[in-house]
Amino acid sequence: MEAVPYLALASAVAALGLAYFFFADVKKASPGNERMVFLMTEIQNGAKAFLTQEYTWVGAFGVVMAVLIAAVIAPLAAVAYILGAFLSALAGYVGMTVATMANARTTEAAKDGPGKALPIAFRGGAVMGFSVAGLALGGLMIVYVLFVLVMKVDDAFEVVTAYGLGASTIALFSRVGGGIYTKAADVGADLVGKVEAGIPEDDPRNPATIADNVGDNVGDVAGMGADLFESYAGSIIAPISLVAFALALTAEEATATTNISLLMFPVGIAFVGMLASIVGSFLVKGGASTDSKALSKALHMGTNVAMGITVIATIGIAMWLFGSNEDFDQPIGLAISVIGGLIVGWALGKTAEYYTSDHFGPVKKIAEQTNTGPATTILGGISAGMVSVAASVVLIVVGIGIAFYGGEMAFDNIGALDGGIYGIAVAAIGMLATTGVVVSVDAYGPIADNAGGIAEMAELDPSVREVTDALDSLGNTTAAVAKGFAVGSAALTALALFKSFEFAVAKASAGEVVLDLDIGNVDVFVGLFLGAMLPFLFAALTIDAVGRAAQAMIVEVRRQFAEIPGLREGKPGVNPDSARCVKISTDASLKEMIIPGALAVIVPLVVGFVDIDALGGLLAGSLVTGFALAIFMANAGGAWDNAKKYIEAGAHGGKGSDNHKAAVVGDTVGDPFKDTSGPAMNILLKVMTIVSLVFASAFV
Amino acid sequence: MEAVPYLALASAVAALGLAYFFFADVKKASPGNERMVFLMTEIQNGAKAFLTQEYTWVGAFGVVMAVLIAAVIAPLAAVAYILGAFLSALAGYVGMTVATMANARTTEAAKDGPGKALPIAFRGGAVMGFSVAGLALGGLMIVYVLFVLVMKVDDAFEVVTAYGLGASTIALFSRVGGGIYTKAADVGADLVGKVEAGIPEDDPRNPATIADNVGDNVGDVAGMGADLFESYAGSIIAPISLVAFALALTAEEATATTNISLLMFPVGIAFVGMLASIVGSFLVKGGASTDSKALSKALHMGTNVAMGITVIATIGIAMWLFGSNEDFDQPIGLAISVIGGLIVGWALGKTAEYYTSDHFGPVKKIAEQTNTGPATTILGGISAGMVSVAASVVLIVVGIGIAFYGGEMAFDNIGALDGGIYGIAVAAIGMLATTGVVVSVDAYGPIADNAGGIAEMAELDPSVREVTDALDSLGNTTAAVAKGFAVGSAALTALALFKSFEFAVAKASAGEVVLDLDIGNVDVFVGLFLGAMLPFLFAALTIDAVGRAAQAMIVEVRRQFAEIPGLREGKPGVNPDSARCVKISTDASLKEMIIPGALAVIVPLVVGFVDIDALGGLLAGSLVTGFALAIFMANAGGAWDNAKKYIEAGAHGGKGSDNHKAAVVGDTVGDPFKDTSGPAMNILLKVMTIVSLVFASAFV
Repeated sequence: MEAVPYLALASAVAALGLAYFFFADVKKASPGNERMVFLMTEIQNGAKAFLTQEYTWVGAFGVVMAVLIAAVIAPLAAVAYILGAFLSALAGYVGMTVATMANARTTEAAKDGPGKALPIAFRGGAVMGFSVAGLALGGLMIVYVLFVLVMKVDDAFEVVTAYGLGASTIALFSRVGGGIYTKAADVGADLVGKVEAGIPEDDPRNPATIADNVGDNVGDVAGMGADLFESYAGSIIAPISLVAFALALTAEEATATTNISLLMFPVGIAFVGMLASIVGSFLVKGGASTDSKALSKALHMGTNVAMGITVIATIGIAMWLFGSNEDFDQPIGLAISVIGGLIVGWALGKTAEYYTSDHFGPVKKIAEQTNTGPATTILGGISAGMVSVAASVVLIVVGIGIAFYGGEMAFDNIGALDGGIYGIAVAAIGMLATTGVVVSVDAYGPIADNAGGIAEMAELDPSVREVTDALDSLGNTTAAVAKGFAVGSAALTALALFKSFEFAVAKASAGEVVLDLDIGNVDVFVGLFLGAMLPFLFAALTIDAVGRAAQAMIVEVRRQFAEIPGLREGKPGVNPDSARCVKISTDASLKEMIIPGALAVIVPLVVGFVDIDALGGLLAGSLVTGFALAIFMANAGGAWDNAKKYIEAGAHGGKGSDNHKAAVVGDTVGDPFKDTSGPAMNILLKVMTIVSLVFASAFV
Repeated sequence: MEAVPYLALASAVAALGLAYFFFADVKKASPGNERMVFLMTEIQNGAKAFLTQEYTWVGAFGVVMAVLIAAVIAPLAAVAYILGAFLSALAGYVGMTVATMANARTTEAAKDGPGKALPIAFRGGAVMGFSVAGLALGGLMIVYVLFVLVMKVDDAFEVVTAYGLGASTIALFSRVGGGIYTKAADVGADLVGKVEAGIPEDDPRNPATIADNVGDNVGDVAGMGADLFESYAGSIIAPISLVAFALALTAEEATATTNISLLMFPVGIAFVGMLASIVGSFLVKGGASTDSKALSKALHMGTNVAMGITVIATIGIAMWLFGSNEDFDQPIGLAISVIGGLIVGWALGKTAEYYTSDHFGPVKKIAEQTNTGPATTILGGISAGMVSVAASVVLIVVGIGIAFYGGEMAFDNIGALDGGIYGIAVAAIGMLATTGVVVSVDAYGPIADNAGGIAEMAELDPSVREVTDALDSLGNTTAAVAKGFAVGSAALTALALFKSFEFAVAKASAGEVVLDLDIGNVDVFVGLFLGAMLPFLFAALTIDAVGRAAQAMIVEVRRQFAEIPGLREGKPGVNPDSARCVKISTDASLKEMIIPGALAVIVPLVVGFVDIDALGGLLAGSLVTGFALAIFMANAGGAWDNAKKYIEAGAHGGKGSDNHKAAVVGDTVGDPFKDTSGPAMNILLKVMTIVSLVFASAFV
């Protein structure tokens, strides 16, 4: 049974090998003519410059944190923290570099139809997918094997948890910084380009077009990748730390077979999920048709197969680890938890799709509400987003119920650990076991989007744009499933980490009761109030940040149109200074990233040192409110976006109509909702919880 | 000391006498010419028709609830429930009737300048103010004296609590129904009148104008009055029930002198606050100037004096009831709680004013954001509203801290009751002791607004409109203080009621531990998730309700313009069918009121019978999230409203500019935020808590 971490480590290495294979595959494809290579290089350089600068800034923050951790917790924890942060940054850098190589190659391949182009875009994204999954799992297993199994250091599981905190730090800043960048560039490019200068999207004359394309990469590729790195690592760490901290409270039981099985089970699921992802990734092949159903089927084949394999293999792993249990209620119960989590995650994704896709009622209704202008469009989206909160919370509650039931079925209590809580923790890893292939599909989206942009800017034949458009529109719906898993696992992981926090406090205080989390305790209630407020503050800060960064961009674009002669008229040989736009957007968004990012780390530390009961309330309050607000913002934003696209496709008067203008207002409001504040909220919750968990012993 | 309830009863009777005096005073003023009387009568009839129909529907719901209470709790509780509901409805009916008499009389008096008009509008509102305060306190004291002191019935305090539930029921439906009506009429009148037909606001040709004026009365007068009736009664009931339920857990202590003082103290504050309000109400006198500062000073004189008296008298009451305490830490501590509450309530009002008044940065910034169109306007308002949540939550936390500190200073524990919790409960009554005069000022606003509408519709001299405009603009800022008290007391009262709920459960289960409210308990966490989701669902339902009701109105106005010849052209003798608009708006909003209203009552009942731990989590989750969401919606809505008015006053291009158009979009989005969903949210929280408290024994 002790072999499981080594197996998982081997699977992580295999994933990295696969990433290299896909990289080589992408690299050997042609990037097209000189103009395309130029555009690709500009995007790539911009994206790299952003990441380098972002990592420099975050690195400084990370050093401070590492010193603090070394001083307050343990030097080895600081090592794990740095490793988690470094590997997440590395995954982001490698993945994004390849993604920015794949865009022009996808455009070039699109000349031969989608059958050629789809695999290149997918494999470009798969480098990100398998870098994220491989590095996250690999690094975690190294920490686990080294510190827990080999060195057997004291408080080894605090060290393991610090790895997760390192990943969270990068995820938070990447989501916030990338989210601000991508929307500032988008809004800036649109407002001056389309509205003021009257030139179409992705037009080469617009100095912000390159920045807009860079934004897709730093936000939707690097930001998303760091998010999933953190979620994936966190979902494995949560059940492990839960078991470890609970057993530490009743030390004598820690070596029983069942307990080792409990530690190994989440790692085992990650192992089989990784193998399943590798298998699935080879099944994505494009056909000749640009029909959206056929393309969608091709792209989703990998994910669906990987999930199917994971479900079956989970049962196998459960039988292997818990098969000595006589009436099989242990393996059956835990399999119920994991598979239940997977199904609920899927259902959450479908709910997001229902509320944000123009195939269903809600978006159609918003499109109709454009009849009475922008105000009713805004109210319609707000209302739809809020209703989607209700549906999603009900699903999460059902998921918690199933996972809890399965866990309770497996065992009642082992020491301080309740079986139901363990069930909840492993349900999250059920959702994220196939991260490798899920992130691949997710990173495919911005590659296809960029490919379209390059086709437009390089003024290629419209037939090429047709193919890239088909690939791009596919990317918009694929994100829904990944989103469902990310959101659902965030709630479950945070809940499990919260419970670990309770155990960690109990352990650090040597069994003394120092934590009173009864809601009737006024300190806890004050914490709940503060916790419920933080997501609102965080949302306000990030929305304002996008506004200010976009403003900086607008000023620069206006300046270029005014000062560069012949630019607006498209005189041959006159090119905009795209690099300057990229630089301005980079500087503005990184400056804006600091306050909301730091808030997430500093607030729990301050509250924790002042009053640990209040910290408990704060974590719970921000988890439930932040979850609701995140779903509201993501789905309202998605719904407005697709209502606009629905109208652009010809409904309610089509492009240029008053309805379209109203829909554009909705879309612009939704931009920071869905791409900046909403996605960053999930990480905010986890960062706060994991900071509290790592520093629990210091608070006591 | 036993005399306190009788004194409070006497003060309530005095308040009702004052209300009659003001009524007679208003009645003897002239309502103006035939046209003005006609308009006044139309508004009055419309408002009465709405209230009658609303009360009929709510009455049916109330009967079901009363039967349920009689069957599950106690028949006398049902009696108290009906009394609470009846008196709240009565206060609403009487107050609104007089308010709709005062509008034309204010217009007529405005011919002689603001010195004449201001007192009439204020005294019209004061009938509402003192009806609300007098009936709420009087009814509560009758229940208290009769069931607790005279009949000494078993579980007398459950009966007292049921009085509060009756008031909550009316408040919820009045706020929701009235809020939907007023915004549906407003949006309907604006969209067809101003936008489609191109006729100005309050134009007599617009069939929806009367309905719009009716809306001000049913929403801002009757709805607000029922809200404050409930808040006021609730803030007295919360500390009483807290003490009573806590003492019931340790029966032997219930007769100790200190404990009786604890029961009497909140009633005593209500008594002195009522007297102070009566004194204050006589100090509102108008001068000759229409200068906004002078008018504001005149109007606020009553409130300020009343509060000053209350502060001093609170110290007196505390000394009287707790003066036997040797080192005076009891009277000093409790006075700190009450006065601290009052100051924080005031500060909450100022915060709301800061974020919503055009004298300060946030609204000016939103007005500036209209430069880049409606989308940035919307984002600006959302962000300002969210930041105001942070400021308000910090204030509430400070308020809880001060009140808790004062209570702890007074005493540690008496039986199960913690001194700090008691301090929090009495802080809420500190905020609401001067309800009489606060509601008077609040109800003044819609009267002045209606007076302006009548001046316009009766085509009086522009100088009259100038005076009524000055009075009206004053009304917009006065609401802020009342809002601060209402919001702050809602949070504190709900917190105290929550604690009472815990005691009630403990008592009903005869000391057995049946309630585990530790956040680490998964049931509680599930409850927190569900609780955080409910305010979002409630907001979505009410926003959609406004949309649908407005649509019904729009269809009717369009029909009248199309089918009544000469209406649009303003042919003499051609009048719109206003009554039909009123009827349609009434039917539509009452239909829409049912689901959100019923939700608030049914959800806690269902969850409570299924899992009482989850109910505890649900109440806490909805309290903290609902509080945040309510403030966000109220302040974002207020900010947009005043950004629009700021532009209309000439900034950024003034009326008709693109900036103005963008501001109108913001205002329209904000309408249901600030007048429907936001204000109803506070009651939602309290209704759920008080339902749980009343039914606590049944859940066990």
